Amino acid sequence: MVKYQEAALDRTFSALADPTRRALLARLEAGEDMSVSDLARPLPMSLPAVMKHLDVLSDAGLIQRAKNGRTVSCRINAAPMEDAMKWLIQYQRFWTMSLERLAKFLETRKK
Amino acid sequence: MVKYQEAALDRTFSALADPTRRALLARLEAGEDMSVSDLARPLPMSLPAVMKHLDVLSDAGLIQRAKNGRTVSCRINAAPMEDAMKWLIQYQRFWTMSLERLAKFLETRKK
Repeated sequence: MVKYQEAALDRTFSALADPTRRALLARLEAGEDMSVSDLARPLPMSLPAVMKHLDVLSDAGLIQRAKNGRTVSCRINAAPMEDAMKWLIQYQRFWTMSLERLAKFLETRKK
Repeated sequence: MVKYQEAALDRTFSALADPTRRALLARLEAGEDMSVSDLARPLPMSLPAVMKHLDVLSDAGLIQRAKNGRTVSCRINAAPMEDAMKWLIQYQRFWTMSLERLAKFLETRKK
């Protein structure tokens, strides 16, 4: 695999290896833009700590930030997750569930 | 999500965030057990360095090691990858490719 792709995967997996950052992405999963302060509010940590996590997500390309006046809004960008998925999917023959069953399983859990 | 699941995901994503560890898993992907020395041979680093990477993979449950006399053999264990996949799949509506197309795409690349 080409070097820059490897480096991008390093950043993606590393960014996902933290429960706060996964929680931030889960909150953005609804698809709507959220302000940094709205994202930070329910978290048991300081705003600067949340902003550091957002920096890591942004460096990995997992979120996009935009400034509107004094408000910074965040939006999910799932392209790096798709690349992570492409890497993981190579091992699917070792899994117990097929991709199709996995997708259906998650669909039923959402209801 | 339950705490221990979060900790397991932390370890999995963190273990995958390194090109050497991903390369080790890719070599084990053929499905056959490999000895530590066979795994280490093509890598541009010392045997102890490789063994540290194998420790990380083992702690994350991504490989299993077994001792036969003086040889330690490694085998892939993809269950943690399946859990990582289950986490990533929640974001599939943001991806450009459906799971089915993704699987087919990878199939054609292998040929």
